[in-house]
Amino acid sequence: MNETPFKVKKLAVLGLGMIGGSVASAAKARSVAEKIVGYDPYTGARALNLGLVDEIAASPALAVQGADLVVIAAPPSKVIELALACVDQLDASALMTDVASTKGQICRDLADPESLEIRGRFVPAHPIAGGEHSGPEAARPSLFAGATVILTKTDWIDASQVERVSHFWQSLGAKTHFMGYQEHDRTYALVSHLPHWVAFALGACLARQEDGNELAQASGAGLRDTTRIAGSNPDLWVEIARENQLELVAGLDQFAAVLAELRDSAATGDWSKAHAILTQASQWRRSF
Amino acid sequence: MNETPFKVKKLAVLGLGMIGGSVASAAKARSVAEKIVGYDPYTGARALNLGLVDEIAASPALAVQGADLVVIAAPPSKVIELALACVDQLDASALMTDVASTKGQICRDLADPESLEIRGRFVPAHPIAGGEHSGPEAARPSLFAGATVILTKTDWIDASQVERVSHFWQSLGAKTHFMGYQEHDRTYALVSHLPHWVAFALGACLARQEDGNELAQASGAGLRDTTRIAGSNPDLWVEIARENQLELVAGLDQFAAVLAELRDSAATGDWSKAHAILTQASQWRRSF
Repeated sequence: MNETPFKVKKLAVLGLGMIGGSVASAAKARSVAEKIVGYDPYTGARALNLGLVDEIAASPALAVQGADLVVIAAPPSKVIELALACVDQLDASALMTDVASTKGQICRDLADPESLEIRGRFVPAHPIAGGEHSGPEAARPSLFAGATVILTKTDWIDASQVERVSHFWQSLGAKTHFMGYQEHDRTYALVSHLPHWVAFALGACLARQEDGNELAQASGAGLRDTTRIAGSNPDLWVEIARENQLELVAGLDQFAAVLAELRDSAATGDWSKAHAILTQASQWRRSF
Repeated sequence: MNETPFKVKKLAVLGLGMIGGSVASAAKARSVAEKIVGYDPYTGARALNLGLVDEIAASPALAVQGADLVVIAAPPSKVIELALACVDQLDASALMTDVASTKGQICRDLADPESLEIRGRFVPAHPIAGGEHSGPEAARPSLFAGATVILTKTDWIDASQVERVSHFWQSLGAKTHFMGYQEHDRTYALVSHLPHWVAFALGACLARQEDGNELAQASGAGLRDTTRIAGSNPDLWVEIARENQLELVAGLDQFAAVLAELRDSAATGDWSKAHAILTQASQWRRSF
């Protein structure tokens, strides 16, 4: 981690949900930016009232004027759209980063000729932090402390600029790690998107029982933990699935195959097979 | 909750894993028993060294001599066997309870003529407490504080004796709740056994990836929570599955059907259907 703290004169945060709000409040708490301006047509006023940002702008273009760094904390499908909406107003040296959980579509869009103005200054990022709560009320300045932020390896931007964005995330308390976008999307399909969809499926399975609410009351810590992320925002997770559709479906198919093996071992009483699968899972989990 | 603390002169705990060890240490911490004697051919010496019990007996029959209350904290399939192994040594007024996560097979066994000596003094119980750790080292005196203990409704035992066993569990800090064994086994198939097998399937799916260990490192809180209980003891969970096979397989089939709906909605891009399922899960989970 770089020893001199990262400093920006003006930080612009486009999108003030839980993650964008946390970027703003972490930057403020750690004195990373002299001024923080936010933009969000839905939550902007609440974020201002919560003290997450110094000012709210009426448009992305107004928000980024004079900014050194722009963090686009919008759903994956809106990232490039927002970047294009404000790129004309950016200072020549201004850099951009984002927080989207999927990187493939964004990188393919950045490779498009239409994105020429953006890609030389855009360092795609994915902070591995969050939770089932959403909205600026769930923002917290400590969200990135000790968390990993994955930065996408690209070949269209200077190493010194990548270093500067990496330094920004480190200044919020995060460790940074580089990955290609294909590796990123497969990895997070398996370690994040798949577990979310499995938790949603388990939650829906229980919700559909006639006594779904009583079952929730009867549960112990096991069900509570296993379904915690099923309380996440459906809009966001449908969006992530759209963006990472092929990897998610591949992950779901692999999971369904293991589940079917386990189900058949239980149905046929092949307990040694069931035991082998449970042991494989248990050993893997205990190595965490 | 009864106001006078429950007292026994001698408590016998057969089986000194995490749950049995916690029963012993909670009884000691709350001065519920004057003397606590344990039996476990595998973990007995460790439990004694840990100070969970006052004495270790060489057999179930020796452990229960002179006991007022016997807690059988063994895997479900061993409960009746252990009860039968010591029933001849029991005082006429001694009561028995257990901690097994499944109740159907135990109740059917208790209804068997062979169990005549046991069933008039046996109150089946299931503490909704535990976790992924096992063995007496994981025992803790606070395990039952605020937890629910399900007592099985039966018609072969006096209400006053049931009340006395209920009072014992309350004296360890638990709330007690009555349920028929069929309702119990369906309920806990859905809220406990199914989530465990889903977590095991997810863990095995990740363990089977070539980079399974790297994936574990890349994960955030979502995967960690969703698979926490996949670190549980495979022996125990195969045993529970054997004992509650039909209800578990029914639960797995219901879950697999919801999963297939979600998978197909993602594969075909039917995002409004996916959104509806995610919303159903999310609303259910947020009502916890």
